[in-house]
Parts: sequence; structure tokens; C-alpha cells
Amino acid sequence: MKKFINDPYQMVDEMVEAFIQVHSDKVKKAADTRAIVRKDAPKKGKVGIVSGGGSGHKPAFVGFIGQGMLDAVAVGEIFTSPPPNAVLEAVEAVDGGKGVLFLLGNYAGDVMNFELAAQLAKARGIEVAQSISTDDISGFPPQQAHMRRGVVGSMFCWKAAGAKAEAGGSLAECKEVADRMNRNTRSIGVALGPCTIPAKGAPTFELQDDEIEYGVGHHGEPGMRKDKLDTVDNLTAQMTKDVIADLPFRNGDRAALMINGLGGTPAIELYLAYRKARQTAESLGISVEISLVGQYFTALEMAGYSVTLAKLDEGLENLLRAPADTCMFKMPA
Amino acid sequence: MKKFINDPYQMVDEMVEAFIQVHSDKVKKAADTRAIVRKDAPKKGKVGIVSGGGSGHKPAFVGFIGQGMLDAVAVGEIFTSPPPNAVLEAVEAVDGGKGVLFLLGNYAGDVMNFELAAQLAKARGIEVAQSISTDDISGFPPQQAHMRRGVVGSMFCWKAAGAKAEAGGSLAECKEVADRMNRNTRSIGVALGPCTIPAKGAPTFELQDDEIEYGVGHHGEPGMRKDKLDTVDNLTAQMTKDVIADLPFRNGDRAALMINGLGGTPAIELYLAYRKARQTAESLGISVEISLVGQYFTALEMAGYSVTLAKLDEGLENLLRAPADTCMFKMPA
Repeated sequence: MKKFINDPYQMVDEMVEAFIQVHSDKVKKAADTRAIVRKDAPKKGKVGIVSGGGSGHKPAFVGFIGQGMLDAVAVGEIFTSPPPNAVLEAVEAVDGGKGVLFLLGNYAGDVMNFELAAQLAKARGIEVAQSISTDDISGFPPQQAHMRRGVVGSMFCWKAAGAKAEAGGSLAECKEVADRMNRNTRSIGVALGPCTIPAKGAPTFELQDDEIEYGVGHHGEPGMRKDKLDTVDNLTAQMTKDVIADLPFRNGDRAALMINGLGGTPAIELYLAYRKARQTAESLGISVEISLVGQYFTALEMAGYSVTLAKLDEGLENLLRAPADTCMFKMPA
Repeated sequence: MKKFINDPYQMVDEMVEAFIQVHSDKVKKAADTRAIVRKDAPKKGKVGIVSGGGSGHKPAFVGFIGQGMLDAVAVGEIFTSPPPNAVLEAVEAVDGGKGVLFLLGNYAGDVMNFELAAQLAKARGIEVAQSISTDDISGFPPQQAHMRRGVVGSMFCWKAAGAKAEAGGSLAECKEVADRMNRNTRSIGVALGPCTIPAKGAPTFELQDDEIEYGVGHHGEPGMRKDKLDTVDNLTAQMTKDVIADLPFRNGDRAALMINGLGGTPAIELYLAYRKARQTAESLGISVEISLVGQYFTALEMAGYSVTLAKLDEGLENLLRAPADTCMFKMPA
């Protein structure tokens, strides 16, 4: 295993230390746990937006803390859920008296630990709601969409709900926005190869020289199937059509399109994927109104990318376009 | 070779097409060549800042086009200098009557092609000056600093000169700022492995499982030496000390510190490197006033990073902190 690390069991603490140093204008560390909190929290009269999950996905989750997105993040070990006490400390740090919304991806450990934290928070008189994202179309058919994993499409939920909270929305309104954004969002990922979790030291899957993993998850989970490597145009056209058919998106829909790099893929390749995804969407009458190309939710060094499309209504579009000023993402982008 | 591409000889054109689509709020394509130009260029009475070089380094160069940094970039093939006619078209597109400053790295092909373009521009009555960055300490000793390659430290020169131009500086003043920034800036890079140029299909160098390349360039050029892989702390301490000794930085100096990912290195590892680089600098009495951690100048998918330190005086610090709003970088960051 070739990595730039020290002790694999210390690396998250070391990262948190450095992250706070670099972004000290925007964030602070919670007192007792590995929760990272927006510097000006709690904001009285604003719904607190809390997310979290395993490490190794940067910019997610901590990079999106700041004005217009997340108020706090509970930080877990690499690809491992944060413990309930970190989530609880995040809640207490951002509670401005109007309730706290959990935005999380659909992973058993995250759901369980956030639920425990929610119970503890409620016992302390803090109102908590949650919205769970399920944008990854691989793994389960549309009838079982609620069973699907949440991947980078979660970011649209954070952006929309964060903007709603910033605009004074109630807890119920912020939750409704996140739920609606999630219902409108679909993603699919591919990878040229695996990633290696430092504490394990072994690749998450194996591929032949001419193979790709189609439908890969952002923990390096194997995908729906192994396919032969093809041109980025053919591959992206297939991914985009699969995403479009799943919602389904229809002729005349307005959409946000995001190409997300999974860690090891050069930016130039992400722009090639964007070009074809946009062509494919437009050829089916879907207009791309908001475009994001970059690394937003990674899986360590995995070489791969995902295509995410989100159907926009006027409300969601305005929330996605609203200003955001976070550690590693701004809007306008 | 496993990559998400179509024809290697079409990929730069395809990237340019997509880049313009994604960043249409900030940039436009020049009419005849692969030059990308700030949307509101030319700005009357402002020095034009032009850079350029090979592709495969994103965000560099095109990602830094926008308010407060670059006005235009001439885009070459992967790791290949742009032709003089693209540079000339960039010059003509940004000439606001106050002259144009070329900011380029010290590579024979770039220097030659920009020099040819400068002659053509002068023949058309446009005043041109240039500043060549040489921040990479590997390859040549301090007495031959002018022979060194320019790597990611160039970005500080773009930032400072771009801010000076935005503030109404003259061509001579903008050049002086870039030259001074370059004299104050030192970088060193390491890599765990090579990158593969798509049109060649073979890795740029080979390493054993326990080896790193120390002093690597951002085209995947082999470095000063092959070292054994060590902890990120030991490696970063060595890199930082080498950079500090070279200028030399002194006790009491104020500095900007940048950790740049070379493409394939996860963000979490970059933060670990930042932590140790900052510790090392501070232990020698150097205060870190500006911090940047991320991918700014990459070498396709190469797994590696660099440490850059720039000595600040009051003028340079203010210019680095001045607002920038470019396609892929903003200040405040």
C-alpha cells in the first residue's frame, strides 16, 4: 500500500487538526468529539443543518460547512459512521432554537447512529428531523428506490436545504426541500479501479486491464456489473440514459448536471464526461441549467466518476443558485 | 492504458468545448485558436494577464481565468506548449491599451513560443512584457535558480500580478510584482508513481513498491532521486526544510504555504502534509499567514504532492489576499 500517511488510526485526527487550521475563518472544532462546526454557530432563529459520515470523501462532508450549506459535520473514521456522541455534540453546537435537520446518506451505520443521536437530542428538548438521500440508481430498481444508497446527489440536498435554512425556512420546510431534491435526483458511478482503505491495506475490488466497474459506490463497493472499458462518450451516454430512464426525466425538463470525480480521475476527463452527458440529456429534450464539474464526493484515490442529474422546479433551482460560501465550495461556483 | 477518453488527439478540443459550456459566465473561446479568454475582455485601461502551456494540469491554467487573476490562456496539447498563434490571439483578445504581461513557467517550448508571439504582438503595436517562474528547487542549485522549472508556485505570481493589474497597476508594476513573487517562492514535489500521457500510452517513469520520486516535475518528469517511501510526516518535514534552506527563509519571516495535489492524491493526505509542513515552518520561526490546500496544478492522474512556501512582504500579502473570482479558484478561498 503506497500512501502519504502516518499511522492509519491517527490520520482522521491529524486531518481534523489541519482542516481547522486551514479553514479557521469558517469552522471550529467541537469541544469533546470529532465534530466540526461552522464558526458562527449557533445562529439564533435558524434551522441547524447537520450532516456526517465516514472520512475519505473530501470535499464531502466537512468541505461544505459554511454559509448556505452545512452548519456542522460529525466526522467518522475512513468510510465508517461517526459515533452518536459526535452527532449529538454537532446538534448542540448548531441548535438555534428552531430545530436541527439531519441530512445523511442511506447507510445502515449512519442511519442508526444519527437516529440514536436524534433520540438523545430530543430528550434534551431539541427538535430533530432527518432527510435520507438515495440517489444511486445501482443496486435496487425504482420500486425500491428507498433502499438505494445516497451518493454525491446528496450535495444537491445539502445545498437546497442549506439555502432554505439560511432564508429562514422552518424545520419542516427545510426537510421538505431536501426530500423533494432527493426524489428528483439520480446518480450512477463508474470506476477504472478500486481504492485502498489505509487500515485494511487491500484494494476494495479487482478488475482486469480492460474492465470497469459499472454502478460503483463511493466506498469502493463493487458495482452492478463489470463492463469492458469503452470510450468516455459511450460510457457516459449509457450512464446518462440510465439516469434519465430511472426518474424518468422527460422532454422539456430543466435539470442540474453534475460530473463528480471519485478521487483519482484527472479533471480533463471529467470535462469530457460532462460534454457527452450534456449532449445526451439535450438530445432527449432536457435542458441543463446548472452545471458542476469537479470533485465533490470522493472515494480516496479511486479513479472513477459519476453522472448526477436533478430535475429542477423553480423553487429548487433558486435554492441551488442561492449564495453559498463554504470551506471548499462556493456558489456561484 | 485505462483512461476515460475518446481519441487522445481530440481530447483537448473536447475539453475546451466542455470548459466553455460549464464556465460560460466567466469565459469565452477565441475565434480562431484554442485560446480561452475572460468573458469581459478586453478591459480598457487594464494590463492584460496572459498565461498558457500544455493541458493536463487543471485547474491550471484555464481554471484561473477570471477577475483578479488571468485574462486569457493559450491552451496546448497534453504537456505540450501552445502554438504562437494561440498566444497571439490571446494577447489581441485582452489588450486594453495598457500592455500585456505573459506569465509562464520556465520550459523551453513555452518560452520560445511566447517569445515568438511577443514579437508578433509588438509588430502590431501591443506592448508585451513577461515574467518567467522558476520555483522548483529540484534540478539546479540556488546559484542557477534562473534555470529551474516553474511549477505550482507560478500560481502565486498569477494571483499577485492579476491583483495588481486589477488595481490599475502599469505593465512594469505588474511585471515587478510577478518577478518579486517568483524570487520569494520555492517548491518541491514528490510522487508515489507516474502518470501516462494518453497519446503515448506509457508511464513517464517507473518506481518500485517501496519507492517515491523526490523532486518530481508536474509533467511526470523523474525527480532528483528515488527515495524509500516514508511517513508523510518524515517526507513533508524533509521537503519543507529543503524549501526553507533554499531561499533561505529566516526566523521571523511571514509566508504563504500551499500544499498542491498532483492529481491522484486524496485530499485527506494533502491535509496531513499541510499539518507537518506548517509544524516544520513554525518550528523554524516562520509564520504561516496564508494557507492553500488542494489541487491547483496537476499532472494528470499522478499520485503526488508539492510543498510551496512564499515569503511575504506587505505588498505581496495584500495582493495574494485581494479578491479573485475565477472559474476554479476564489479568494477568499
